[in-house]
Amino acid sequence: MTDAPAPSQLAMVPFVSVAQMMEMVNAIGPRKLMAELAAYIEDDFRRWESFDKTPRVASHSKEGVIELMPTSDGETYGFKYVNGHPSNLKRGFQTVTAFGVLARVDTGYPILLSEMTVLTALRTAATSAMVARHLAPKNAKTLAMIGAGAQCEFQALAFQEMLGIEKVRIYDIDPLATKKAVFNLSDSGLEVTACETGEEAVAGAEIITTCTADKQYATILTDNMVGAGVHINAIGGDCPGKTELHRDILMRSDIFVEYPEQTRIEGEIQQLDPDHQVTEMWEVITGKKQGRRSADQITLFDSVGFAIEDFSALRYVRDQLDRTGAYQMLDLLADPDDTRDLFGMLRRAKG
Amino acid sequence: MTDAPAPSQLAMVPFVSVAQMMEMVNAIGPRKLMAELAAYIEDDFRRWESFDKTPRVASHSKEGVIELMPTSDGETYGFKYVNGHPSNLKRGFQTVTAFGVLARVDTGYPILLSEMTVLTALRTAATSAMVARHLAPKNAKTLAMIGAGAQCEFQALAFQEMLGIEKVRIYDIDPLATKKAVFNLSDSGLEVTACETGEEAVAGAEIITTCTADKQYATILTDNMVGAGVHINAIGGDCPGKTELHRDILMRSDIFVEYPEQTRIEGEIQQLDPDHQVTEMWEVITGKKQGRRSADQITLFDSVGFAIEDFSALRYVRDQLDRTGAYQMLDLLADPDDTRDLFGMLRRAKG
Repeated sequence: MTDAPAPSQLAMVPFVSVAQMMEMVNAIGPRKLMAELAAYIEDDFRRWESFDKTPRVASHSKEGVIELMPTSDGETYGFKYVNGHPSNLKRGFQTVTAFGVLARVDTGYPILLSEMTVLTALRTAATSAMVARHLAPKNAKTLAMIGAGAQCEFQALAFQEMLGIEKVRIYDIDPLATKKAVFNLSDSGLEVTACETGEEAVAGAEIITTCTADKQYATILTDNMVGAGVHINAIGGDCPGKTELHRDILMRSDIFVEYPEQTRIEGEIQQLDPDHQVTEMWEVITGKKQGRRSADQITLFDSVGFAIEDFSALRYVRDQLDRTGAYQMLDLLADPDDTRDLFGMLRRAKG
Repeated sequence: MTDAPAPSQLAMVPFVSVAQMMEMVNAIGPRKLMAELAAYIEDDFRRWESFDKTPRVASHSKEGVIELMPTSDGETYGFKYVNGHPSNLKRGFQTVTAFGVLARVDTGYPILLSEMTVLTALRTAATSAMVARHLAPKNAKTLAMIGAGAQCEFQALAFQEMLGIEKVRIYDIDPLATKKAVFNLSDSGLEVTACETGEEAVAGAEIITTCTADKQYATILTDNMVGAGVHINAIGGDCPGKTELHRDILMRSDIFVEYPEQTRIEGEIQQLDPDHQVTEMWEVITGKKQGRRSADQITLFDSVGFAIEDFSALRYVRDQLDRTGAYQMLDLLADPDDTRDLFGMLRRAKG
């Protein structure tokens, strides 16, 4: 290897590993990071129309799905590789792992490779809280969390930081999951309550987040559990065949989505007619459409996760490289002295 | 970083950098490597029907294109990121850079990340030679190369190794490119002739490879340059608006392609009617269809490069990791002790 010519700077791509992502999050602090990240996401929702919105490319198998989610703003291109394998849980693997790439549109050269398993958890919570700022009742203080999986604590902290939530009421079908979340949030300053039923969790909550993991039609929330004026942040229904809310709740709610073409396939609204009226969040954020109109309205964010949020997250990470130093350089691109002389580069590497 | 828990083996992904790819190629030898790689590609053409053949996902801009090329055989999933920016050449960048990933279908976990700029050059030449073994006239000894860019030497060596080619006649519009190729092939054992015109290069050649770089309709080969019995290996026409052969040559040839749906958009046959008869190479390789039928037939491989060839190349590289040691492990995947406790992993990393 010592004989090989040193790859030039052009050919080196910054890489953020899982350990470096954790270093970055802990250096900035998860709450501060999610609030900063939410500002990037909101900026990108504001210029939604300038993005190239290719549908994700999915490769389905009986065990799960592997997806590529590309997008571009004309200057920067990004994509995320993400898998969804519910059956991984019982094998001790992550159900979702992800990594992503940013590249320059003008040269096609990648400029960032990053782990995105941790980053996706952060961007999902940042998006939820950013959207809730537009839709949730003013001065909401209590968040109910149905599902205490990997996303739970990120949601709690993002809502604390960005909406001033003071109380979190957690329910999971597995009491050990609830216990884990309560422990992890013990020094957060939040008043955390472990609940034994979903009904108990939603009592008094102005905001309800549903985030469970089963890949099947489920009813985590039934109609009688949802009172007037509540904001529902529905995250778990995110692929065909997987929903969490009873259809009656959807019929009583004003529904807000990221990208209707994708949400109608993957979100809660797969239960509804394909022409059921929904509002795109970018239209609320730019002021084209109204968000919450009244105190007794039920607002529902039917969130499935969209490529632009990943793009915002990668853009944010790239801007934190110098701030945190949490990256390494990878020799990912060939850079011969003469671009036509790839073979000569190989010959010279032999020494 | 020292405080972070060590990522487990499951979460580590082997990475082959450009320097490591060159180390691998030089350890095995480019000719031997291309012959071995061609066997992997031929195996995958033989089981062509078992692949999930998603069309590539392209993001076009005025400067070029960025593409994701995924495929899967049901057990392993692979994709390549590749850009095509003809204007990069004059800026001193590569017109094409690439990297790729293999993953397990059953868990969705990536199992290889590799540079593919060098690897794509190798797989393209390996594919050309493998196909020529099925289509070129028997005992061909002379190869004409029109275009002496990055692909030239790889073609010459693959045809030497796999078909017994003894003489290579090179022409490029830029004499410096020809000179570079002649120099690089000086110790190859091939008899190499630098030619001053395309006509001179094709004289006496049984196989003609066209591989030029312009992104425009060009006529590198005119009808009178192509005699009976020749095999044409047309590589340069590989995107909409870019072709190299005069239409009359296509009309006199039996045309063989990788994947008609893609070739009709990107290949030489974009000049022909959409229902012009072509033969898929996998059908020739499996014996379903005939390749060369007679000594005076003109066979044309209209090659655009297909995702399955990249899949074969990544599969080959993965199988050479232990043999060559030319890789490093990357901490790409999050692997918490409890898969639901991503946040706890983050907390513990803080130390």
